[in-house]
Amino acid sequence: MNKTLRALIFLVALLFLARFSSAQNKIVVFQSDFGLKDGAVSAMKGVAMGVSTELKLFDLTHEIPAYNIWEAAYRLEQTVRYWPAGTVFVSVVDPGVGTARKSVVLKTKSGHYIVTPDNGTLTLVAQSLGIDEVREIDEAVNRRKDSQKSYTFHGRDVYAFTGARLAAGIISFEQVGPVLPKQVIRISYQQAVMEGKIIKGDIPVLDAQYGNVWTNIPDILFKQFKPKFGDMVHVVIFNKNKEVYKGDMPYSQTFGEVAEGKPLAYLNSLLQLSFALNMGDFAKTYQVASGGEWSVEVSLK
Amino acid sequence: MNKTLRALIFLVALLFLARFSSAQNKIVVFQSDFGLKDGAVSAMKGVAMGVSTELKLFDLTHEIPAYNIWEAAYRLEQTVRYWPAGTVFVSVVDPGVGTARKSVVLKTKSGHYIVTPDNGTLTLVAQSLGIDEVREIDEAVNRRKDSQKSYTFHGRDVYAFTGARLAAGIISFEQVGPVLPKQVIRISYQQAVMEGKIIKGDIPVLDAQYGNVWTNIPDILFKQFKPKFGDMVHVVIFNKNKEVYKGDMPYSQTFGEVAEGKPLAYLNSLLQLSFALNMGDFAKTYQVASGGEWSVEVSLK
Amino acid sequence: MNKTLRALIFLVALLFLARFSSAQNKIVVFQSDFGLKDGAVSAMKGVAMGVSTELKLFDLTHEIPAYNIWEAAYRLEQTVRYWPAGTVFVSVVDPGVGTARKSVVLKTKSGHYIVTPDNGTLTLVAQSLGIDEVREIDEAVNRRKDSQKSYTFHGRDVYAFTGARLAAGIISFEQVGPVLPKQVIRISYQQAVMEGKIIKGDIPVLDAQYGNVWTNIPDILFKQFKPKFGDMVHVVIFNKNKEVYKGDMPYSQTFGEVAEGKPLAYLNSLLQLSFALNMGDFAKTYQVASGGEWSVEVSLK
Repeated sequence: MNKTLRALIFLVALLFLARFSSAQNKIVVFQSDFGLKDGAVSAMKGVAMGVSTELKLFDLTHEIPAYNIWEAAYRLEQTVRYWPAGTVFVSVVDPGVGTARKSVVLKTKSGHYIVTPDNGTLTLVAQSLGIDEVREIDEAVNRRKDSQKSYTFHGRDVYAFTGARLAAGIISFEQVGPVLPKQVIRISYQQAVMEGKIIKGDIPVLDAQYGNVWTNIPDILFKQFKPKFGDMVHVVIFNKNKEVYKGDMPYSQTFGEVAEGKPLAYLNSLLQLSFALNMGDFAKTYQVASGGEWSVEVSLK
Repeated sequence: MNKTLRALIFLVALLFLARFSSAQNKIVVFQSDFGLKDGAVSAMKGVAMGVSTELKLFDLTHEIPAYNIWEAAYRLEQTVRYWPAGTVFVSVVDPGVGTARKSVVLKTKSGHYIVTPDNGTLTLVAQSLGIDEVREIDEAVNRRKDSQKSYTFHGRDVYAFTGARLAAGIISFEQVGPVLPKQVIRISYQQAVMEGKIIKGDIPVLDAQYGNVWTNIPDILFKQFKPKFGDMVHVVIFNKNKEVYKGDMPYSQTFGEVAEGKPLAYLNSLLQLSFALNMGDFAKTYQVASGGEWSVEVSLK
Repeated sequence: MNKTLRALIFLVALLFLARFSSAQNKIVVFQSDFGLKDGAVSAMKGVAMGVSTELKLFDLTHEIPAYNIWEAAYRLEQTVRYWPAGTVFVSVVDPGVGTARKSVVLKTKSGHYIVTPDNGTLTLVAQSLGIDEVREIDEAVNRRKDSQKSYTFHGRDVYAFTGARLAAGIISFEQVGPVLPKQVIRISYQQAVMEGKIIKGDIPVLDAQYGNVWTNIPDILFKQFKPKFGDMVHVVIFNKNKEVYKGDMPYSQTFGEVAEGKPLAYLNSLLQLSFALNMGDFAKTYQVASGGEWSVEVSLK
């Protein structure tokens, strides 16, 4: 009787563990600044398929502007959380290839794995999803065979190879290499803050396909204004402290609430305050770009 | 004996149904105007993989020009029929996001499913493949958990989520939501017609990669001319009734039948009359574009 | 006893064959000049999924410049070897569609299959990976049903269809069609050679995303200079024998070894001599392009 109960408890515990473990799930998602015009992305996927044909391979994007670590960090922040726990991301934006930057795998508290050079790419996900553990890739063992002569394609020979072996369960997370302190290289950027009756923030990225301007001001900060749909938002946009745009626009639930070509403020799919022209291109119209030099001030009229 | 026979008939009927049913086949094909530069497409796929890792995910295109519903309709028309019955398409070109347009799933008579805002995107496939049934997505149940706060990314939280659950067989077509009348929102466009000895038509789309001009004139209409390969076709192209191009070109079976840089008329892969320059770009050379304002008149010399 | 031994030897031989045979592995990799803006690539994949839903479909690139057979050849050369043996490649860059060029499948000595028009696309892989056998596609049987009326989309109706059936094991390599002589159409190009103290070569392709210039000079030729990292390489670049660039740059193991904006010579991921500007765009800065008309002369100072 007692035995049966213990067996039952053990079984439940096992199921519980299985449910909440972040075991790898055979999914690999690739990101890079390689573009899709040459064979680099395909070579990475070929190496992964050579590791295990059971893997499922996907792309985040390969159109990160060349060497733009900030945007690599932002795309991971925008995407990782929507994939199931256990997914392995391989991100290769690596201006310092061959220099002293470490090759690492971050396991987030959400159970996602990110294989990348530790060069700032992990800035945002480390903060939002939390660091469970960071390990340095031991390239002596985690490197494609016969690739020692090649100096420049770590993406294929180390990152894709290691990510594929981790995702396929051929190596455990521990076998990636030695554990590092729970920290990653971080890019500094202006955080969103309330100062008096004004919220200050920056423009980490544009929604380039539509020309919408996304800020890093989260809904919880903006909602301290207690805004109602239709309330007018006063927006000033600066480039290196020089005013580039000043205007008023309604806080809107849908783009269709303003006439075509008119501006509106809304919460984007990441629940950050954003600006758009209905059926138009805000960024192009007002010559707004993104990055550390671009900041915004927002108030409610 | 009688019993055995009945069982046999029942079995055969079952097999027959299985063969011809349009049961979902775990394939999801995505289309959007999101582009591939940010994380939006990847977030949709992550949500789908979170629904079931057994799904097979593909892309139609994500380079639909922003808000261009007509082109979304055309790309579906060009592609859906080549996928096996049971395939689920998720098409997100949605200028009216958040407005009163309905979110629907069309089941075509060919057994394909298309998950989309009902905003004209279904114009062409509803006509060519036929409407078996249209259902409105019940967003109270068919919506990603914890996504209620987000107003603008229906593609991820409703369309990808519902398409993935339908493709995986987690919900049946009936569980999508209430059945609607057998009709969809249609974009009006000029149909191809024979008027006397002239065929009139429009230019729904360009074969942009090569600069070929595709009309909506089907082979069965053009063949009323009884054309032989080598016969000269007289072509006039108008933009809002203003003549843009006038010329003669041979009806050709292959591009190589005319000299480099010379024009030819041919039937494209959808068996529609089209115009090209051998090894050249007809559209760019003669400044021809596509859409409702572009029309053609064709006759045989 | 003797019998047992023979059985054992037979078993070992079988296992050996299984290990080294190039049986198809259900992987299909597509390449074309179709771009990703329309439905052409998706239609090819739909046809493949209609052949077998067990196939795994991938892309090499679809951004080959229109009709550029040389670049198609180069991308295959850059990529095929990184995929497991048994992978089927479908490459459709076909300026002569409908003309007398043959539709073939090449089986390389490395066990890869390439389905393509034989128009020069196989120039480089035939040379580097070796020709095991070439077969002409018998279009009477290896053609999508009901596709006889369509003249122009061989990519979908013949190449994707045949590649999918071969990869799925529905047809054997022998069933592709009749065997041809062990040769393919080759594009002529200047090979890399040492002449006195100068190595001459050409620029087959640019690493366009970064603007790096790749030559066809392999490491084994360059290393006859016995270069050490830091040694200065003297580089002259010609377009049709007209000098376009002349300069000295260090042979470097990593980009970071020179200051930002400064040139370096390095071995790329294919172990060919290449030129770059650290954090810059060599090709754009010095107006260098690629192709048969571009040549280089390299010497060690």
